[in-house]
Amino acid sequence: MVDTYYTQEAHGPFALHDIGSLELEEGGTIRNCQLAVATHGTLNAAKDNAILVPTWYSGTSKIMEQAYIGPGRALDPSRYFIIVVNQIGNGLSTSPHNTPFPAGGARFPRVRIGDDVRAQHRLLTQNFGLERLALVVGGSMGAQQTYEWAVRYPDMVRRAAPIAGTAKNTVHDFLFAQTLVEAITSDPAFADGFYAAPGEVHRGLLRHAKLWAVMGWSTEFFQQRRPQALGFSSLDDFITNFMQAYFGPMDPNNLLCMAWKWQHADVSRHTQGDLKQALGRIRAKTFVMPISHDMFFPPADCLAEQRLIPGSEFRPIDCIDGHLGLFGTHADYAGQVDKHLAELLATPA
Amino acid sequence: MVDTYYTQEAHGPFALHDIGSLELEEGGTIRNCQLAVATHGTLNAAKDNAILVPTWYSGTSKIMEQAYIGPGRALDPSRYFIIVVNQIGNGLSTSPHNTPFPAGGARFPRVRIGDDVRAQHRLLTQNFGLERLALVVGGSMGAQQTYEWAVRYPDMVRRAAPIAGTAKNTVHDFLFAQTLVEAITSDPAFADGFYAAPGEVHRGLLRHAKLWAVMGWSTEFFQQRRPQALGFSSLDDFITNFMQAYFGPMDPNNLLCMAWKWQHADVSRHTQGDLKQALGRIRAKTFVMPISHDMFFPPADCLAEQRLIPGSEFRPIDCIDGHLGLFGTHADYAGQVDKHLAELLATPA
Repeated sequence: MVDTYYTQEAHGPFALHDIGSLELEEGGTIRNCQLAVATHGTLNAAKDNAILVPTWYSGTSKIMEQAYIGPGRALDPSRYFIIVVNQIGNGLSTSPHNTPFPAGGARFPRVRIGDDVRAQHRLLTQNFGLERLALVVGGSMGAQQTYEWAVRYPDMVRRAAPIAGTAKNTVHDFLFAQTLVEAITSDPAFADGFYAAPGEVHRGLLRHAKLWAVMGWSTEFFQQRRPQALGFSSLDDFITNFMQAYFGPMDPNNLLCMAWKWQHADVSRHTQGDLKQALGRIRAKTFVMPISHDMFFPPADCLAEQRLIPGSEFRPIDCIDGHLGLFGTHADYAGQVDKHLAELLATPA
Repeated sequence: MVDTYYTQEAHGPFALHDIGSLELEEGGTIRNCQLAVATHGTLNAAKDNAILVPTWYSGTSKIMEQAYIGPGRALDPSRYFIIVVNQIGNGLSTSPHNTPFPAGGARFPRVRIGDDVRAQHRLLTQNFGLERLALVVGGSMGAQQTYEWAVRYPDMVRRAAPIAGTAKNTVHDFLFAQTLVEAITSDPAFADGFYAAPGEVHRGLLRHAKLWAVMGWSTEFFQQRRPQALGFSSLDDFITNFMQAYFGPMDPNNLLCMAWKWQHADVSRHTQGDLKQALGRIRAKTFVMPISHDMFFPPADCLAEQRLIPGSEFRPIDCIDGHLGLFGTHADYAGQVDKHLAELLATPA
């Protein structure tokens, strides 16, 4: 499955950019690091219409294109030069599954959100010649990268819109991600990551998908029969043909690379653990956009951080689909996101 | 471990009452069904001061005694005759682990909430000679049994206080419980339930406990460092020495018996699936008492049911500890519960 999943046919078009060797915060090195990049629209002469969109756990540039970018949307390719960069480990950029032994697979080094953001910074400044970003916007782990961008490169980011994510991962969120990890690693077929083919770990992947179903949506999502509204006949049908069909073809080591990165996201690493000081560095005009029914990046956690960001605004999105409303599953979602993003983009910064 | 866990030393004192053979709704039969019963206080001459307390998933009569019953509490043994009945499958009453082959262990029949309530009814009417109950009160699966009592025997139950539970299990809750089940059954040592000793399934039991940590408490519980307030030095310490220490000694087949029962709780089985009609049968004065931060029996689900119960009142308990606040971990919990229960007991019914 993995041979047909992480492909141009399934997730393209994207271009591979070699940004050279990337020395990682945890000590490893990715040689000839490749970033898979999808662009939409054209950079203007003033070079001030560039928008960066990082990706979330398990996601690729394709879902960002489908759910957030298009004519008439806030992220309109006729107005903006939109650069979607696939995160390291997601299967399109350099990842465990496409890095050969002994540096790949189970041996792939630990990557942090900060590594991704430095890699993207190199890409944007050296390969694309950019000095400013009109906006960085991303959901979930994309929000983690958005916060890291705004804290690490405050002069480059004019606006920031972290959706359904936090700048510092919470203990509860860490714990949830740990159960996802253990669902995979507990499968005897995982074999410490030295499986012959990802499909061998199917039992672990199935459990991983079911855990996502519990925390990814919300009680109300199921109570109001949203799976049925989305075209599924039953809970079983939804679990099998949405959740497990989605995660099933992915590579276990890729998922674990992203999970570790997600768990350890923390902008306060820049300030010796002082979150207030770290968020105080942000100069981007920031809209903090949690999703109302998110069970692991709940609005309260996002609000606490928003209060530490100078000049920021709290812009929650009302959506019973919870965290995975990020996929744009609910008809009312895109309109709310676009309204906030359009307003943010219209704000001088 | 199981040899020292399900004992008088660990969970007593309790008495075993044989209620005879119990024919189950799913078709099996428990022969010489034993109910483990702990009583507090004395039945008065009018026989109108009896309170029934059923137990929750994994719980026994001991935790109900410790967290809810005592002098000066609403459930005061000096005023009431309090009967705590351990649910079938919890390890003290007839359960998979204490029923010999071929009827026990992995072969133990499926038990429904309705079976427990019929068994308890037989116990209370035949063994204790009771005709009325001043109150039925329980948390979580204890709430499921409370609802079943109020719907099935409306003339016998004068007051009802379901805490942190619903009358009909929700789809989301079903799904969460399924992940608990799969955490255990996916352990190769589980061996379809034919393990030689429960400790062999330790990997599955450890994962089961960690899933409980994610959904059992709340984001705020961890954010506000409640584990530290409870005397644990770190997340790891809390997971290991609270969650896993609690669930670790239990018998996997016992847990699975209770989980299936939990998943399938539904009072509308009495009314061909019509929940409104089922709850409309209730004649008990009912206080519906969800816990504010409960992630799988959220207040909204409880409120929807409360509106269908004639003359009932919605009495939420504010507690960031979430569902497992049921253990009385938070200093503000018992006072709130007692206030509501005392008011309910003082209400003519």
